[in-house]
Amino acid sequence: MHFASDNTSGVPDAILDALRDANQGFAMGYGADRYMDALRDRIRALFEAPQAEVFLVATGSAANALACASFCPPWGAIYCHRLAHIEVDECGAPEFYTGGAKLTHVAGDTGKIDPEALAQVLAQACKGVVHHVQPGMVSLTNLTECGTRYSVSEITALAQVAHAHGLPLHLDGARFANALVAEGCTAADMTWRAGVDVLCLGGTKNGLMGVEAVVFFDPAKAWEFQLRRKRGGHLPSKHRYLSAQILAWLENDLWLDLARHANAMAGRLEAGLAGHAQIAYPRGGNMLFATWPRAGHDRLQAAGAEYYLWPDHATWDDPGPIGARLVTSWSTTTEDVDRFLTTLARENALASDPALG
Amino acid sequence: MHFASDNTSGVPDAILDALRDANQGFAMGYGADRYMDALRDRIRALFEAPQAEVFLVATGSAANALACASFCPPWGAIYCHRLAHIEVDECGAPEFYTGGAKLTHVAGDTGKIDPEALAQVLAQACKGVVHHVQPGMVSLTNLTECGTRYSVSEITALAQVAHAHGLPLHLDGARFANALVAEGCTAADMTWRAGVDVLCLGGTKNGLMGVEAVVFFDPAKAWEFQLRRKRGGHLPSKHRYLSAQILAWLENDLWLDLARHANAMAGRLEAGLAGHAQIAYPRGGNMLFATWPRAGHDRLQAAGAEYYLWPDHATWDDPGPIGARLVTSWSTTTEDVDRFLTTLARENALASDPALG
Amino acid sequence: MHFASDNTSGVPDAILDALRDANQGFAMGYGADRYMDALRDRIRALFEAPQAEVFLVATGSAANALACASFCPPWGAIYCHRLAHIEVDECGAPEFYTGGAKLTHVAGDTGKIDPEALAQVLAQACKGVVHHVQPGMVSLTNLTECGTRYSVSEITALAQVAHAHGLPLHLDGARFANALVAEGCTAADMTWRAGVDVLCLGGTKNGLMGVEAVVFFDPAKAWEFQLRRKRGGHLPSKHRYLSAQILAWLENDLWLDLARHANAMAGRLEAGLAGHAQIAYPRGGNMLFATWPRAGHDRLQAAGAEYYLWPDHATWDDPGPIGARLVTSWSTTTEDVDRFLTTLARENALASDPALG
Amino acid sequence: MHFASDNTSGVPDAILDALRDANQGFAMGYGADRYMDALRDRIRALFEAPQAEVFLVATGSAANALACASFCPPWGAIYCHRLAHIEVDECGAPEFYTGGAKLTHVAGDTGKIDPEALAQVLAQACKGVVHHVQPGMVSLTNLTECGTRYSVSEITALAQVAHAHGLPLHLDGARFANALVAEGCTAADMTWRAGVDVLCLGGTKNGLMGVEAVVFFDPAKAWEFQLRRKRGGHLPSKHRYLSAQILAWLENDLWLDLARHANAMAGRLEAGLAGHAQIAYPRGGNMLFATWPRAGHDRLQAAGAEYYLWPDHATWDDPGPIGARLVTSWSTTTEDVDRFLTTLARENALASDPALG
Repeated sequence: MHFASDNTSGVPDAILDALRDANQGFAMGYGADRYMDALRDRIRALFEAPQAEVFLVATGSAANALACASFCPPWGAIYCHRLAHIEVDECGAPEFYTGGAKLTHVAGDTGKIDPEALAQVLAQACKGVVHHVQPGMVSLTNLTECGTRYSVSEITALAQVAHAHGLPLHLDGARFANALVAEGCTAADMTWRAGVDVLCLGGTKNGLMGVEAVVFFDPAKAWEFQLRRKRGGHLPSKHRYLSAQILAWLENDLWLDLARHANAMAGRLEAGLAGHAQIAYPRGGNMLFATWPRAGHDRLQAAGAEYYLWPDHATWDDPGPIGARLVTSWSTTTEDVDRFLTTLARENALASDPALG
Repeated sequence: MHFASDNTSGVPDAILDALRDANQGFAMGYGADRYMDALRDRIRALFEAPQAEVFLVATGSAANALACASFCPPWGAIYCHRLAHIEVDECGAPEFYTGGAKLTHVAGDTGKIDPEALAQVLAQACKGVVHHVQPGMVSLTNLTECGTRYSVSEITALAQVAHAHGLPLHLDGARFANALVAEGCTAADMTWRAGVDVLCLGGTKNGLMGVEAVVFFDPAKAWEFQLRRKRGGHLPSKHRYLSAQILAWLENDLWLDLARHANAMAGRLEAGLAGHAQIAYPRGGNMLFATWPRAGHDRLQAAGAEYYLWPDHATWDDPGPIGARLVTSWSTTTEDVDRFLTTLARENALASDPALG
Repeated sequence: MHFASDNTSGVPDAILDALRDANQGFAMGYGADRYMDALRDRIRALFEAPQAEVFLVATGSAANALACASFCPPWGAIYCHRLAHIEVDECGAPEFYTGGAKLTHVAGDTGKIDPEALAQVLAQACKGVVHHVQPGMVSLTNLTECGTRYSVSEITALAQVAHAHGLPLHLDGARFANALVAEGCTAADMTWRAGVDVLCLGGTKNGLMGVEAVVFFDPAKAWEFQLRRKRGGHLPSKHRYLSAQILAWLENDLWLDLARHANAMAGRLEAGLAGHAQIAYPRGGNMLFATWPRAGHDRLQAAGAEYYLWPDHATWDDPGPIGARLVTSWSTTTEDVDRFLTTLARENALASDPALG
Repeated sequence: MHFASDNTSGVPDAILDALRDANQGFAMGYGADRYMDALRDRIRALFEAPQAEVFLVATGSAANALACASFCPPWGAIYCHRLAHIEVDECGAPEFYTGGAKLTHVAGDTGKIDPEALAQVLAQACKGVVHHVQPGMVSLTNLTECGTRYSVSEITALAQVAHAHGLPLHLDGARFANALVAEGCTAADMTWRAGVDVLCLGGTKNGLMGVEAVVFFDPAKAWEFQLRRKRGGHLPSKHRYLSAQILAWLENDLWLDLARHANAMAGRLEAGLAGHAQIAYPRGGNMLFATWPRAGHDRLQAAGAEYYLWPDHATWDDPGPIGARLVTSWSTTTEDVDRFLTTLARENALASDPALG
């Protein structure tokens, strides 16, 4: 019963096979491998973006921080939700890579920036006044950290506000595939066509060992990015092992199938929780936030269920119902989901009928 | 005939097998996997250093830059050879991670810092004078960028100078295994017992996909390092794939066997070059720098031999004999070596007897 | 009618005289002047802090940013009010000097951090979890950016929370003298005795040309600060012109007299505004925030009154009553205050009785 | 006998008077004062550069580091002489402000970069190769740190090499006035007409309290510079005290007269040293490096002469003749020069004729 994170899952056999294939013979390093050439073509076709430039790194934090640094100067503000991964979970990586940009919160429910709130913050940003940090860029996460999903039209609305102020739009897509299949649109629809300037396309949470692609829809920043990547220690010498993985993942829509399964498992979990737990946010893909009585937690913990308390700083010592973050992945099984639900439900049944205790 | 770099080679089957094993089931991320626990124990035993702390990253530049940043303040000088990898080949990663430390050259032949030169530079460093960058740390590479090797006694001598000035000693061990088997000493002898404070133990160039271990012999900097690693985007979520690789590599002395083979191939190359090329530096392990007539290059290029010109900025347009850097690896074959030598030798024979042309 | 800022005022003749005196002959630079020796003694005596270390810089932003950088690592959080000068008005100087620390808002009314809010934020800070920025330090401003004042007991309460979490307390004292004379306590009471670890003692806004003293009550960070100051380009070569100014300013309580006058002028302004304007915050010293009808602004502007709209991003195009920030200084005259009040009051009178127009 | 540095001197009465004048009334801060407007016009006229942008800071290190950061990215190389002030004497300020650029030495005698050496370094810089720091800018100092002077033609030659590689040219003009009057050319001739892109025009060493002007001949970087200046804590609120000083200094060629006097005093010193000391470098303006017997030093020290040993790391414990750096200023007197010479000469006379001892 592994619901702690989608990064606790492994990789499909197809990825292992791709690594074994890629292991044949010698290959020039640092991105000069044939898998990378094929990958670049594949992503350009997939995103209908023939000018796009694509670069790989091994972690999502690196992808985000390097992408942000390529667009935002040290004296810039990066507008994001207060719960954004770049704000909360990267130990200040964006500040480090940008040379000290300021992550500035924009309000919005359920982890999503509100376009009107963004417009208001930008209207009050004192652009051109030297005493103040200057507007730099806007950053979204889709799926969000609340497990919700920006629709294409919501992204479009935010991009319009950003672009009206001359700001580029970054999309942290650690769970991009989950968002994409849930939204049922094309990759282009969710990105450049909606106004996204740079996408961090997450592979690690959806079946890869540690591969993220940074996709620049406008190649103007490509060389700067490459220098920043190298300088950040993020240019792998044996690069083929990254490019071969992600290439195999994109073949035959494997990445989408993996995401569909993860989403379906979350849907099954959500359906089963009804009546037993309080769901916090509308489910956008493969992640749920829910609250249930303490006794349910006790039973689940005893049964070995793995999940994080929610919010981050919650502890077992907190009084009252405790929240949980539940994340499914490509390798989540229906058995695990059902056992989780049964364990929780039985507990609740027992709790509601002490005579059965 | 692949002699461009040891990072153009793949990985042994044992590493692929280890990845397949590690792929079973779920595992907590960010270093909380059981392979990492086993690895930590293994490295402590191997280095006879029960207090050592061990952390993994995916690239050598990250390992070096993070290690340096953990010891050297922004206003510090990092004393190194002018040819050091951290100085030449990392696009300023140490400057980036330290917040602007100054890499300061220390003279020495064949890529090795000279202890007397180090002592002199430190004597003139104006420590305590606020106008000048302050002495920060000393960094060695073993094998060096010239393919030479510091002996244990040479490391010891440098460590004594460094420590006499209160400076920690960093060892960039991208080719540590090659140096170790060539020197024929224990891992402890070449590191903490000689005075090394932090080692970057390279796996990538010696049979791994992209794994480097940073070993702190004094754990005082361990927590700071972990924060810097995370902040640098270098803490992998699916960490098990790094720890499982390096653990398998250390089992049954695989890492040393791989290095011994690479060194032997370089030795075979060196022996065969005698009489046909000018060897630049005493060979320390698996890397050679040599010069031979242009015609030899032409023949080798035509035959598909891969190697870098030397020095870095050399081009085919340069007049006169052109140098080459030749690197062997665990997967270099005797056939490739011999074919390389035959191609070069034939060329030279032809060149020396134009009538045969 | 100059109420835009206390930094639009000049300096008293005593300061000009001190400069002329200090101009005699030659003096060693970079702080090795006799005025600095006298100043250090004077501040130690004044603050009853014989161990304190004192350093001068020319701007408040430099003082704050350098002080913060001496205490907070790049991965640290600096807890401050969302309106704090370091957060709003320094174009990211603290982020720059710290190497990317994160300024984290703590709630509180009237520009003052609330101790309970601080305690709560710290309780939820996930200290020791590598994914999150770590608690670094707490920063207060007194007077605050709302013109309010922390009492000694309020500072003490905040220091206790900070210290309980192992965090140092920084006091941005750009208007420290104004706070001090209003509070009527000793300099020691408002600083180290209340738990302040480092004070930025502002001279520029209270009668100096551009001199701020950074006072470390614990000298442990003194050397690091000096290196950071030099590296930041903030160590003046002709240092005597800074030390002579501030020394003269501290003589015979001149600094306190200047602050008392500024506060008295703000009091006079406040009293006169009663009935004509809405005062936003309890006045702590020499700064007021007030709102009055548009017609009053028009009359004042026509009469040449100088002040900033409030909040920062307010413009004359905003509908409705517009706020103003009014700051008095040592050189504000009663005539100016009274003329301001008369201009505003007449306008209001006219507005309320159109027949008089 | 004050020859330690030109920054140990005071300021002429005209500067004090200018401060007193500027002290009248109120003035808007941060550069919005009328003196700054006049100064901008004055400098544009003086340099025959109507498009130039001018900004003031209080120290030479700030001027240099901010100017460099405006042109050189974090991954750039700043080519300079190994003795350059930015390399040796600013505790890494350029690295700090640029975010970790690499100061790269270019050879040349007597503190001056050699154009051929620059061309060679640039030819070997591996531009466009991601592993290496990229060429960023070229920085000269005039007068140099050896007291020598680049002629206009020498600057032109270096600018041509720099511009041929697309690199901007920075001129550290801490002693620009001294160089200018010695060279006998116009300010335009020594700067933009020779190819200088940004000049740090030093006032502090030549009669101001702490004012340096950064002059951008191409205004493209002006806004970025202003943000960097603010963020660096180098935008003075009471800016008028800087602008009034430098404006008065430029009036009636005062700055040139001051520099002429300083140079003349150095010339007198040089002439008098003939036969008694070994002069190290051709004198370019107001600075000399010379070596004489130990006994001469003893006598001078006893007589209270002030100067720095040379090189930086020299100490009284060094055996043999010890070098001295002698700097004259606008306030050096012929009496002081002559007394210095007499003291030294008598010593030598004594030494050469022991019977007189």
